[in-house]
Amino acid sequence: MRLFTRHSFAGTSLQMIADELGVTKAAVYHHFRTREDLLTTVVEPVLEQLRGIIGTAETKRTPHARAEHLLTGYVALAVEHRAVVAVFATDAGAIEMLCAQPETSDLVDRQMALLAGVTPGPAGHVNATMVMAGIAAATGPAMLSLDDDALRQHLIEAGRRALGLRAPRRPTRDETPHQQASIA
Amino acid sequence: MRLFTRHSFAGTSLQMIADELGVTKAAVYHHFRTREDLLTTVVEPVLEQLRGIIGTAETKRTPHARAEHLLTGYVALAVEHRAVVAVFATDAGAIEMLCAQPETSDLVDRQMALLAGVTPGPAGHVNATMVMAGIAAATGPAMLSLDDDALRQHLIEAGRRALGLRAPRRPTRDETPHQQASIA
Repeated sequence: MRLFTRHSFAGTSLQMIADELGVTKAAVYHHFRTREDLLTTVVEPVLEQLRGIIGTAETKRTPHARAEHLLTGYVALAVEHRAVVAVFATDAGAIEMLCAQPETSDLVDRQMALLAGVTPGPAGHVNATMVMAGIAAATGPAMLSLDDDALRQHLIEAGRRALGLRAPRRPTRDETPHQQASIA
Repeated sequence: MRLFTRHSFAGTSLQMIADELGVTKAAVYHHFRTREDLLTTVVEPVLEQLRGIIGTAETKRTPHARAEHLLTGYVALAVEHRAVVAVFATDAGAIEMLCAQPETSDLVDRQMALLAGVTPGPAGHVNATMVMAGIAAATGPAMLSLDDDALRQHLIEAGRRALGLRAPRRPTRDETPHQQASIA
């Protein structure tokens, strides 16, 4: 992920990865035939968690509740996997590769729809784009000096304002105290 | 800019640029020794305008007025040069190259400081990061269906909310009616 961040996905070869790890190219090739394989493997556990967050958000009754669940869940996930999300979300080559997979592209569309649903029309899509891009950028190298808890809190608050969401006054019924604490 | 957007800056060669233009590599090479030269030349007129916006914003008396001037000016500039800003702001290789130039890096720092100044501490920096990344993302290919006026209006409104800026009630004294109309 460090090499992808520094040289872009398209600019990183398996040879560079092997050099960085201090192994031969054959050793990397034994596990991953292409850098696409490697990126897919790194990203898969994050996508699995994201699927769960999106699925739960879609069961909520109001546009506000759907956007709130997606925002808090996605920010927590993005902060936990800072390096992966930064590449996944800002590198043209990585985006092209991942979005060429119909399932990933569908997840991004559903995320955007959940965030955009708070405000009708194109304004909702601009708000959602700003929040998605903002989360990706703020989890990148620029914010390394900020600890995870502070980053999570500030991103949720900025995201709520950008989307026009009010902060929830108390835990909703289907959130356990543990979940609430982990995203507060 | 189309090739940089599709293949990333690092993944685009002068040969690919020559092929896209239907000329020889020697013809491209006659004008630009490297793709760095080419990107610098494309970006320079936009940077020139940005310098003016940042300089004026820094003369304003309050943090709110400084952020408001930067936000409206930068959004207008970004929408006018949609393709350039999208590459300039989201491609790791292009960012690395441009930020290696001390003057560009200084401009980005001043922009961030102007936007972050509305809210003290790291929260202000997270807000500014979200707005800068959001403007870059929303001026990219995802929003091509939206016309320039609508995109400008929605971005300014989302940016104001994310930063915690109130919308100005009337034109400030140093804005002409023409400037006001162009960003409304």
